[in-house]
Amino acid sequence: MLILGIDPGTAITGYGLIEVNGNRLTPLEYGALRTRAGEDTAARLSSLYRDMSSLLKEARPDVVAVEQLFFNTNVTTALAVGQARGVILLAGAQAGIDIVEYTPLQVKQTVTGNGRADKEQVGFMVKALLGLQVVPRPDDVSDALAIAICHAHMGITLEKLAQAAKGR
Amino acid sequence: MLILGIDPGTAITGYGLIEVNGNRLTPLEYGALRTRAGEDTAARLSSLYRDMSSLLKEARPDVVAVEQLFFNTNVTTALAVGQARGVILLAGAQAGIDIVEYTPLQVKQTVTGNGRADKEQVGFMVKALLGLQVVPRPDDVSDALAIAICHAHMGITLEKLAQAAKGR
Repeated sequence: MLILGIDPGTAITGYGLIEVNGNRLTPLEYGALRTRAGEDTAARLSSLYRDMSSLLKEARPDVVAVEQLFFNTNVTTALAVGQARGVILLAGAQAGIDIVEYTPLQVKQTVTGNGRADKEQVGFMVKALLGLQVVPRPDDVSDALAIAICHAHMGITLEKLAQAAKGR
Repeated sequence: MLILGIDPGTAITGYGLIEVNGNRLTPLEYGALRTRAGEDTAARLSSLYRDMSSLLKEARPDVVAVEQLFFNTNVTTALAVGQARGVILLAGAQAGIDIVEYTPLQVKQTVTGNGRADKEQVGFMVKALLGLQVVPRPDDVSDALAIAICHAHMGITLEKLAQAAKGR
């Protein structure tokens, strides 16, 4: 199963594609989609939409996992992130790919065991869980991989529960 | 000049197309783009994007005027409105149409002379300024027309200033 994690933003959108085989997680591709600071919002959203659509076409994930809102953010940030999420969800829907959402709390809890973990801890665990040499940068990329790992873990847990239920 | 005013939302997006001829404003078409409450966010954004793209294709406005954020709104609303705005700005950029933004304060100030006017006052003035029989409903439609009127007024004011400058 291929999971594409996305950390949306108008300036930088982090993405991370991982493969799940049983309990094994393999990072396939990760990076950041960037838009030009000088351009207006509509042009930047248009660029993000094109890059996202291309990424979905190339990566062909089974599911896209997107980070939900930080409730402790401010209204201006929420609007900007909302606009980026809008075009990402649209690209996903148009590609016919399932979209799942996780809160930062769920992601941190799953990846580090601590729902209030900081960026450093998340980066450290992403590196460890995926067997990477270094922590992916910028943070948006680590966060995107963390979201993908969170969804993988949910799947693995459900599968174990299903097997346990069968074994009864 | 054709101005399309938009009041964005995931459930209901109000739109209003007006024609400006000198000081004269003529309402050409107005209504609401609605999405199904039962569907997930990505599907609703996808439906909004399709409807918005069709509307731009049919209406062929010279400019799209969109309402900016209410700063006194909450984060959850800002995210939801942001997602809807994202796909609307995208549709506009893809159609190669200029997009302008006005705050609710600017819109109310221009249309009613009072930046803190309520919905009733805005609706009343939209009806009066466009010579309509009744106030367009729901409020999202009146608001969209008010945004278009706001942009028309900015243009009329600038034109007068330009003429005054020429006459000197």
